[in-house]
Parts: sequence; C-alpha cells; structure tokens
Amino acid sequence: MSNNPIVKGKLVCVALNDSEQFNAMQAEFAEAPYKGAPTQPVLYFKPHNTWSTDGAVVEWADGADSMVVGASLAVVFGKECCRVSQAEALDYVEGYTLVHDFSLVEQNYYRPDIKGKCLDTSAPIGAAVVAVEDPQALTVVTSVNGTVVNETPVSQLVRGVAELISTISYIMTLQPGDVIAVGFPGQRAPVAKGDKVCSVIAGVTELNNTLGE
Amino acid sequence: MSNNPIVKGKLVCVALNDSEQFNAMQAEFAEAPYKGAPTQPVLYFKPHNTWSTDGAVVEWADGADSMVVGASLAVVFGKECCRVSQAEALDYVEGYTLVHDFSLVEQNYYRPDIKGKCLDTSAPIGAAVVAVEDPQALTVVTSVNGTVVNETPVSQLVRGVAELISTISYIMTLQPGDVIAVGFPGQRAPVAKGDKVCSVIAGVTELNNTLGE
Repeated sequence: MSNNPIVKGKLVCVALNDSEQFNAMQAEFAEAPYKGAPTQPVLYFKPHNTWSTDGAVVEWADGADSMVVGASLAVVFGKECCRVSQAEALDYVEGYTLVHDFSLVEQNYYRPDIKGKCLDTSAPIGAAVVAVEDPQALTVVTSVNGTVVNETPVSQLVRGVAELISTISYIMTLQPGDVIAVGFPGQRAPVAKGDKVCSVIAGVTELNNTLGE
Repeated sequence: MSNNPIVKGKLVCVALNDSEQFNAMQAEFAEAPYKGAPTQPVLYFKPHNTWSTDGAVVEWADGADSMVVGASLAVVFGKECCRVSQAEALDYVEGYTLVHDFSLVEQNYYRPDIKGKCLDTSAPIGAAVVAVEDPQALTVVTSVNGTVVNETPVSQLVRGVAELISTISYIMTLQPGDVIAVGFPGQRAPVAKGDKVCSVIAGVTELNNTLGE
C-alpha cells in the first residue's frame, strides 16, 4: 500500500455538493426518513489506508464487479483552522491539489457507506500543492482512457470552498496537512480493470492513476 | 489539542454492537428505509483531531447543551492485517486498551453523524497497551463522578473481537497503530461540564478523563 506525503491527519470529503445532482434529488429528499434536503454539508472520511499518490496503480476492489471514480479539487491546510469565518477561511490554506475518489457504486448519497469508500489505495492525492488566487474559478476535468467523462466547475458546487472551510472548521479543527475534497460530480464515472484515469485543473495540476487488474 | 502516541493511522469505531440495544431495536429496523437489521457491522471513524489521552480534559462541545459518553475495549494492531480469518485474527493484535467516545447525543444509531462524533479531543485512548489472552472475557465498567453508569461485558456484544477484526480486515487494511473500538453501551451516559469519567477493565487498564468547563 502506498502512502502520500501531503495528507497527514485526515482527508475529509464532501458528498452531494454537485448542484445539478442536488437539484435533481429534491423529490428523493422529500421522502422518509429525512423529509427535506440536507441543511448541512454531507461529509465522509477516506482513512489512512486509502491514501495513495499520483501515478499509483489503484487496487481493484476484491471481488467487485464494478467500480466508479470521481475527482475533486482538494484544499490542503497550512495552518490550524478552528471556527473561522468565510472571510478569513482561505488564509488557512497552503494550496490546492486534486483527489480521486475510487469506490464501489454509491448506494446512498446521503451517507456514503464505509465499505464502498474505504478501499485500500482508493484515494490518490496529487503530488503538487499549488497556491491559487481564486479556487472558485477552477474547473476539474476528468478523462478515462482519454475520453472526457466529467467536467466540474468549482463555481457550480452547492457550497463553495470558503463556505465549506468555515462550516467544517466549526465541526472539527483542521490541522496542517489535513485535506478537504470539496466536491465530486454527482455522476461518478464507471471504470474497469486497467483503465487510465486522468484529472486536470488547467494551468494548475493534474493527477494520473491506473486501475489494477 | 492533545495527541495520542498509540493510535497512528485510524480509529475505527463499531456502532450498534450492544446486543441489548440491538434486540430492542428490531421494530425500528423493520421500518423504511432499511427494512431489516443491519447485516454488517456499522462503522464510524473518530478522526485525528479527536484523539486525546488518559488524563486529558475533554473539550465541552462549543455551544452544546448536552453531551454523552460511552467506553469500549480497544484493539491495537501490531501487524498489517488484510483479509484475515477469525481464527487468525487475534495474531495481528499488539494488545488492548480503552477508548472513551464523547459525543453529542446520538440522533441515529445506524449512521453516527459526523458533526456529533468528530469533536476535538473527544476520543481519549488509554496510555497502556496490554496483552490479554482472551478479550471476550473482559468487562468494561464506566463511572461518572464515582457512580457506575455502564457495565459492558465484551461477551455480550453482537459481534465479538475476532469476528470484527476479520470482517473489517476485508473492508480496509488495518495497519500497525490502527485501533478498533469494538463496542459501546447502547445507552450512552449523559455528562455535564466538569464531570470525571473513569472506565476500568479490572486487572488490565483504566482510563480517566474530565469534561472541560
């Protein structure tokens, strides 16, 4: 299992932050047991055994028929960040990179399941941490075997970068080397054994991985 | 925020493993959306910012009216543990200690919520890692200000130690310094500011914490 030198403490991922998906799910939100759209960001963790690197071969999930991938802009913290306002949120960021989230097919968007999300090596994190003036202006483009499967402008997320940092900093302290993956496309792309997955933020960074056999 | 020298990679907690609570919830399990008892262990993570120590003052949750605590036997891994059988599971254990899980009052036993579970310093982990012949024979006794509030024999958990290690090792690799908290009492004990919480496994170890003001 490879390890990643950038993420040190925790990798927090934000689910259900694609506004197209969020809007399409209004009828589902109205059903039991929640009877309403989530009022807070839906979070999940990718734990230590998932952290891998740019260029890594991602293990195919043992016995799985299918897997999916999504990519997200990732915020890397440079300073301890506890209960900060949106206005000051970006001051705590060391820089930005990319995260791939490989998983089993998602069964429940409200509460990503541990089994599907915690696969060994399933969270490659980019090698470069890049300073960026305005993270809201970035777009993440993901290709599988050279064909574009997702294009996610950060500006179209339900909650933006500064809002997420502020909200999450009231739930748990973010420490240097912690990473938040701010939002994945609602439609994860199916992948097969041996596929090459490449995500790019133009002019900033890219992340390349291959699925194991 | 204090750090803990024992847990290095991840602290995995098992919810809903108290057989008394599990049996009492059969009617609730039958309702939507699950329409059945969980067939797999329900897991949650206590991330890096929660890890604290024996003797630590646990922060009172910012703005909270109430908090609760439960204690669990904790398995500390000494060797990398991936897809192991129940028969060999205990060979991967370095030893045992105690974990306190302080949290907001639990809203949902199926899916412990991130906000309530990820409070800074809310997961003190014992100072000693003790070798034990038969973890199933242990009992965790928790007192608040000297009054016993919970007594949890490990033998009464829905899933035992070896079964949990095996099952979880198929979901994610456990690495040296990873910890599994195998089961908390279904009825968490309410705590107030300044309370002293003490959990004991007789003849093995104990864990003492005080709630902040």
